[in-house]
Amino acid sequence: METLAILVAAGRGERMGAGRPKAFLAVAGQTLLVRSARALRAAPSVGAIVAVVPADALEEARGLLDASVPGCVVVAGGGRRQDSVKAGLDAMPEGFEGVVLVHDAARPFVPADVVEAVAAAAREHGAAIPAVPLTDTVKEVQGARVMGTLDRGRLAAAQTPQAFRRDVLSRAYGRAFADSITVTDESMAVERLGLPVVCVEGSARSRKLTTPDDLEWAERLVQDGNA
Amino acid sequence: METLAILVAAGRGERMGAGRPKAFLAVAGQTLLVRSARALRAAPSVGAIVAVVPADALEEARGLLDASVPGCVVVAGGGRRQDSVKAGLDAMPEGFEGVVLVHDAARPFVPADVVEAVAAAAREHGAAIPAVPLTDTVKEVQGARVMGTLDRGRLAAAQTPQAFRRDVLSRAYGRAFADSITVTDESMAVERLGLPVVCVEGSARSRKLTTPDDLEWAERLVQDGNA
Repeated sequence: METLAILVAAGRGERMGAGRPKAFLAVAGQTLLVRSARALRAAPSVGAIVAVVPADALEEARGLLDASVPGCVVVAGGGRRQDSVKAGLDAMPEGFEGVVLVHDAARPFVPADVVEAVAAAAREHGAAIPAVPLTDTVKEVQGARVMGTLDRGRLAAAQTPQAFRRDVLSRAYGRAFADSITVTDESMAVERLGLPVVCVEGSARSRKLTTPDDLEWAERLVQDGNA
Repeated sequence: METLAILVAAGRGERMGAGRPKAFLAVAGQTLLVRSARALRAAPSVGAIVAVVPADALEEARGLLDASVPGCVVVAGGGRRQDSVKAGLDAMPEGFEGVVLVHDAARPFVPADVVEAVAAAAREHGAAIPAVPLTDTVKEVQGARVMGTLDRGRLAAAQTPQAFRRDVLSRAYGRAFADSITVTDESMAVERLGLPVVCVEGSARSRKLTTPDDLEWAERLVQDGNA
């Protein structure tokens, strides 16, 4: 079963405080956009990659990708994450019935074995995500009042790429849009249909780069030869 | 109302892979134990500090603390976190009815204003914790199956120091021990009695140092003059 990837790179990256889309920030001289595309390409089963970027950055993204990860399709994203993923889905070849990966450009160091594992799990179960245990003690709150402590053993932090059989993702997205629901990740659209989503083991290296602290961590990872 | 602090430094720190209790690891030449005690002492309302350490590290801890944060009481902890906190409570002056702070030695950079805010909130409401928003998308899981996505707006990650009026913490702990319940933090013992616990704003600087990555982050914080 063929596997295609949607690389979501349309976020504004406001928590970085860098004044430009996060995917165009560089770690050790290479943008997160290019690093993430290369990480996906490094997984043997990944075929085409569709990168979804801000409309005003289409040409820049094409230039960057053509120079180092040739063959990517680049399309303009929308206002919400799900609008960008929809744009990526619309750019898939008609009749494609394989596995679709949806990956954040803000996770440039995802290991190839995580990509392969999540794709394989989606082939078998329809939908899969990489996940890691939470290290925090998580409270349920209502305003400033603590309502209770969640059982950490029953919680996991979702990473990407999330993986879906095309028909499962299309159906879940169709319903989310029809119901005017905003989802925080693709898995959530599938969960609300009651369809199975399974976890595979994520990786600490696939940390989402959100703050300047995260970028420093990434610089060290590259400098230390671990990326 | 007087405020006393229990500094929990009895953890084995296995995720650090350093082969010794975490609180005795150093950041820029100073142990987490001493840094945390100094952070508590920097808060004007904090009076006595009771440090709870592994039984085989009592003398070492006394030496370290006497040299830089004189006046701390040092006692031996137990197997679980709550056994160590109980040992700290038992070392409090008899009849003490002020506010008790319980702080992790693994959070050496807690700002004094967070300590003051949580102590003040406990004075007023009986129990308070510092908390920060979660950045992850959190899934509820059952084994390898994703059961749903939690509403991040209703979740918070608990930090320390957690703060309690002595009577509230003693009662909550008494019940937790009587019921043979293991709690992951002190707040949980209070929550299960249905007593109010309020949140104050935590701080990214008060990150819990759990992995070698966290220690590197801490080294940079000190080197950059931010600690």
